[in-house]
Amino acid sequence: MINKRGCPYGTHRVIEPKGTLPQAAKKIDNTMEIYTNEILIDVKTLNVDSASFTQIKESCNKDIECMKKTILSIVNERGKLQNPVTGSGGMLIGIVEEIGSDLKTDLKVGDKIATLVSLSLTPLKIDEILNIKIDADQVDIKGKAILFETGIYAKLPDDIPEKLALAVLDVAGAPAQVNKLVKEGMTVAIIGAGGKSGLLCCYQAMKNVGSSGRVIAIEYSQENAEKVKKLNLAHDVIVTDATKPVEVYNEFLKVTGGKLADVTINNVNVPTTEMSSILITKDEGIIYFFSMATSFTRAALGAEGVGKDVTMIIGNGYTKGHAELSLNILRESKEIRKLFEEKYC
Amino acid sequence: MINKRGCPYGTHRVIEPKGTLPQAAKKIDNTMEIYTNEILIDVKTLNVDSASFTQIKESCNKDIECMKKTILSIVNERGKLQNPVTGSGGMLIGIVEEIGSDLKTDLKVGDKIATLVSLSLTPLKIDEILNIKIDADQVDIKGKAILFETGIYAKLPDDIPEKLALAVLDVAGAPAQVNKLVKEGMTVAIIGAGGKSGLLCCYQAMKNVGSSGRVIAIEYSQENAEKVKKLNLAHDVIVTDATKPVEVYNEFLKVTGGKLADVTINNVNVPTTEMSSILITKDEGIIYFFSMATSFTRAALGAEGVGKDVTMIIGNGYTKGHAELSLNILRESKEIRKLFEEKYC
Ligand SMILES: NC(=O)c1ccc[n+]([C@@H]2O[C@H](COP(=O)([O-])OP(=O)(O)OC[C@H]3O[C@@H](n4cnc5c(N)ncnc54)[C@H](OP(=O)(O)O)[C@@H]3O)[C@@H](O)[C@H]2O)c1
Ligand SMILES: NC(=O)c1ccc[n+]([C@@H]2O[C@H](COP(=O)([O-])OP(=O)(O)OC[C@H]3O[C@@H](n4cnc5c(N)ncnc54)[C@H](OP(=O)(O)O)[C@@H]3O)[C@@H](O)[C@H]2O)c1
Repeated sequence: MINKRGCPYGTHRVIEPKGTLPQAAKKIDNTMEIYTNEILIDVKTLNVDSASFTQIKESCNKDIECMKKTILSIVNERGKLQNPVTGSGGMLIGIVEEIGSDLKTDLKVGDKIATLVSLSLTPLKIDEILNIKIDADQVDIKGKAILFETGIYAKLPDDIPEKLALAVLDVAGAPAQVNKLVKEGMTVAIIGAGGKSGLLCCYQAMKNVGSSGRVIAIEYSQENAEKVKKLNLAHDVIVTDATKPVEVYNEFLKVTGGKLADVTINNVNVPTTEMSSILITKDEGIIYFFSMATSFTRAALGAEGVGKDVTMIIGNGYTKGHAELSLNILRESKEIRKLFEEKYC
Repeated sequence: MINKRGCPYGTHRVIEPKGTLPQAAKKIDNTMEIYTNEILIDVKTLNVDSASFTQIKESCNKDIECMKKTILSIVNERGKLQNPVTGSGGMLIGIVEEIGSDLKTDLKVGDKIATLVSLSLTPLKIDEILNIKIDADQVDIKGKAILFETGIYAKLPDDIPEKLALAVLDVAGAPAQVNKLVKEGMTVAIIGAGGKSGLLCCYQAMKNVGSSGRVIAIEYSQENAEKVKKLNLAHDVIVTDATKPVEVYNEFLKVTGGKLADVTINNVNVPTTEMSSILITKDEGIIYFFSMATSFTRAALGAEGVGKDVTMIIGNGYTKGHAELSLNILRESKEIRKLFEEKYC
């Protein structure tokens, strides 16, 4: 242990540019000796953010060796797994190996945890990539990581397999925000509804709107749309391409009989779906952009361009109680749990 | 008039790629014969977006003839003045020449208006460029433009000089949002407080917080900070660099005696000020990002990275009543009006 207390936000590890926080930094110090207010983690699995993983996968034409190389070179260069194209990271699971002497925490050495702060700011060292699960965005490694004093985490529960917990915790902010935003009787649109965060959001939205509300799922693939239908996670399912705003808008109006959404949740993993989200949301409605492929300027200018007075929220990955809420969905819904187990375990 | 009603969003004029909205389109139809739900405008002046104007100016080494050529060739190619490098547009002032028979509007032929939708989606035809005001980003032309059914506009008032109105209308969304978000007794931070939108936001925030609240201005230059102080537009003024989050955070706590902001408004014109905004805002507080230099991922991951449960709003340029509200600030405050007249008239 280095006999010094670091900044709670981790600025002591920023190499450049100085004065920024670790997330904004181009390069951070990934020396695996902890300060007195850090935690050292023996990493098992990285759960790469979907936007980042997709970008790496596509740039490598799904070649695993190329993907490994890309991941290693990012971490070597930056000291963290922050995709330079998407800017995003992901999270990890591992075992607590050492706890700084100045930390007050409920953790003990040997605890299995998931970090709930992004890999885009987490000091990481990869000794070896053991396996890439290409359909689950997961990378098993031998390596270590550091958690800062303000870094949030969740102890992995005993009743849910770790890979499953990891998959769900990655997107825990989304259903938790749905729970905050969606009220009884509302019309709710979920774009990218058949994906991981989309399904959890549908579940939570169905719960919150009650019998007088309506949840409309928008999904690209027939296959994922079927999942949503079969599990009864929406009142209506529209199969369409969310990058085509006019098509989406027309389909939406058809399904709702001319009504626009009170709340729209965007969970896609591809760019240029801002306009679809804006067009299907009513004046004074709310759009929650969870998708990391969202462009700030496209959203801001897009809404102005059609004179739409909507509140557009940037999907903060964290909100109080989000880990518990999302894990509880797995406890409440056998069907979602089964589906996720098939995919992520 | 073409005896047909167009799409309210103007998709009927998109030439390519089909299925997009006019703003995302590469080419739109700028035939100056209106559909029954369009308005024809006799254009006087284009107020080119600052990023776009600067790009054209620099690529032409400030040569006026070259700039004229560049502008004409963009409009010839795209049917709109959307800078292919920056993607941005601007706004225009002109006189209503014809109103589609299917439109319900308070406008009449001969009214002088400013369009409040971007030139990046407005069908435009330039017959002649009369003059380029190189220090004001303004281009006087002979030409016509089309406003779609959903296109917003403001009638130019008689009591405010045109150029002044144009400058203020450009950022009208910001003070209008302050008016929505800021309540009596709140602690409010305005970052980039000495700029055009910043000053208007300060004024509105001071009005809304009342005697029990507190407005803290954060500004980079001593000169602009002095303006804020002299005009009494904040309770405290911090002169610091908003790209340095830890400095900003420490200064802020010093000034407030340890209190964080209920609402933070970001009006800067430079990148990487997201973290400063996040650190000085309290848990469950609100951050309104008006700055177009905001990065979606930096904001989303940054808040999560420090475990901050804040609501972050994308600065929609439009909200109901924004034009009136911002022009009224000029009517209410002689000092701001004088300041702006010196700069923009
Ligand atoms: N804000 C945060 O803190 C945070 C945290 C984690 C993740 N995220 C982001 O959240 C997003 C979703 O993550 P996820 O794990 O739920 O991803 P996911 O499981 O890959 O789901 C994405 C969904 O979007 C659908 N989709 C893709 N293209 C579409 C299109 N053109 N039209 C309609 N639907 C389309 C996909 O359908 P098909 O598979 O059928 O193509 C899929 O169902 C990602 O952008 C991720 O980066 C944000
Ligand atoms: N969302 C929308 O619809 C919309 C519409 C219009 C404009 N905008 C955006 O809003 C922003 C502000 O526009 P504006 O016209 O008000 O710009 P402006 O007049 O140029 O004001 C920018 C202010 O930010 C200050 N600033 C710059 N760097 C700073 C730093 N590092 N720390 C602290 N303050 C700093 C500047 O100070 P100094 O001059 O002293 O350096 C200036 O006072 C721009 O990004 C613009 O693109 C958004």
